[in-house]
Amino acid sequence: MSSNNLTSGENQQERLNPYWLVGFTDGEGCFSISIFKNKTLKSGFQIFPEFVLTQSAKSLETLEKVQSFFGCGRIYENKRYDNHRESLYRYCVRNKTDLIEKICPFFNKYALLTAKKNDFELFKQGLEIINRGEHLTDKGFIKIQEIASKMNRKKPRN
Amino acid sequence: MSSNNLTSGENQQERLNPYWLVGFTDGEGCFSISIFKNKTLKSGFQIFPEFVLTQSAKSLETLEKVQSFFGCGRIYENKRYDNHRESLYRYCVRNKTDLIEKICPFFNKYALLTAKKNDFELFKQGLEIINRGEHLTDKGFIKIQEIASKMNRKKPRN
Repeated sequence: MSSNNLTSGENQQERLNPYWLVGFTDGEGCFSISIFKNKTLKSGFQIFPEFVLTQSAKSLETLEKVQSFFGCGRIYENKRYDNHRESLYRYCVRNKTDLIEKICPFFNKYALLTAKKNDFELFKQGLEIINRGEHLTDKGFIKIQEIASKMNRKKPRN
Repeated sequence: MSSNNLTSGENQQERLNPYWLVGFTDGEGCFSISIFKNKTLKSGFQIFPEFVLTQSAKSLETLEKVQSFFGCGRIYENKRYDNHRESLYRYCVRNKTDLIEKICPFFNKYALLTAKKNDFELFKQGLEIINRGEHLTDKGFIKIQEIASKMNRKKPRN
């Protein structure tokens, strides 16, 4: 899986500096809570919290370093059909325990500096509701919907 | 110009950590050399090296911190007409001296970790040619064209 395309600078960081990782996340990271209809579940919905960092194939090695730093998450290849030469790779943490015990404590300690901090705060609120099992109640589900709607906001499609 | 939308975490970094800045650039930054036709110039072309960081309005304060950190560059508003609520802001360093004396030494000291490092190396090669005035010769101009074509590569449009 490793890419050899990266130029190795003499002063290249061997292990990730946590401030580099928080800056990289401010630039490129995404905290999201998605809600999908799923008829096989009692509630009829699946709630899907996720932390994602995306890079092109040439920077796959960087995502592998992030994966090794956090000690969790998986890297997925997304084939591209637009005008880019390379596949995209997505480093994703979806496991609730990893999100609560590894990802959140890191960004609690090393604060995000951009507005992504707001998404992270909402993400944590959502995770707490999920962790307490409250998303299975009507009230908790509505709360999750409200939180998800406030994150990564775009204008609603007409 | 300052935005008050940022939540201030207690452990929010007051001054930018250089590793945060290199991570942010790995995630979000762009080194580019553009070549425009310009009939008012003797060569017929204008060569335009630029370092850019882009954020939505909510994170304008972060770009202001970057501007203050580097002590150069300007922030421009780009109105958006897609499905986002906010304007984009672009922190741009276009001045050759600032690029050579402030931006390049920073990224020489704090190495980029993604494939953006390759763009930065090409960017420096281009800047050296421009700085020596060689871009005004046919040979130098062709070199700059080659360098620019290797940066931020997309498939050529049909």
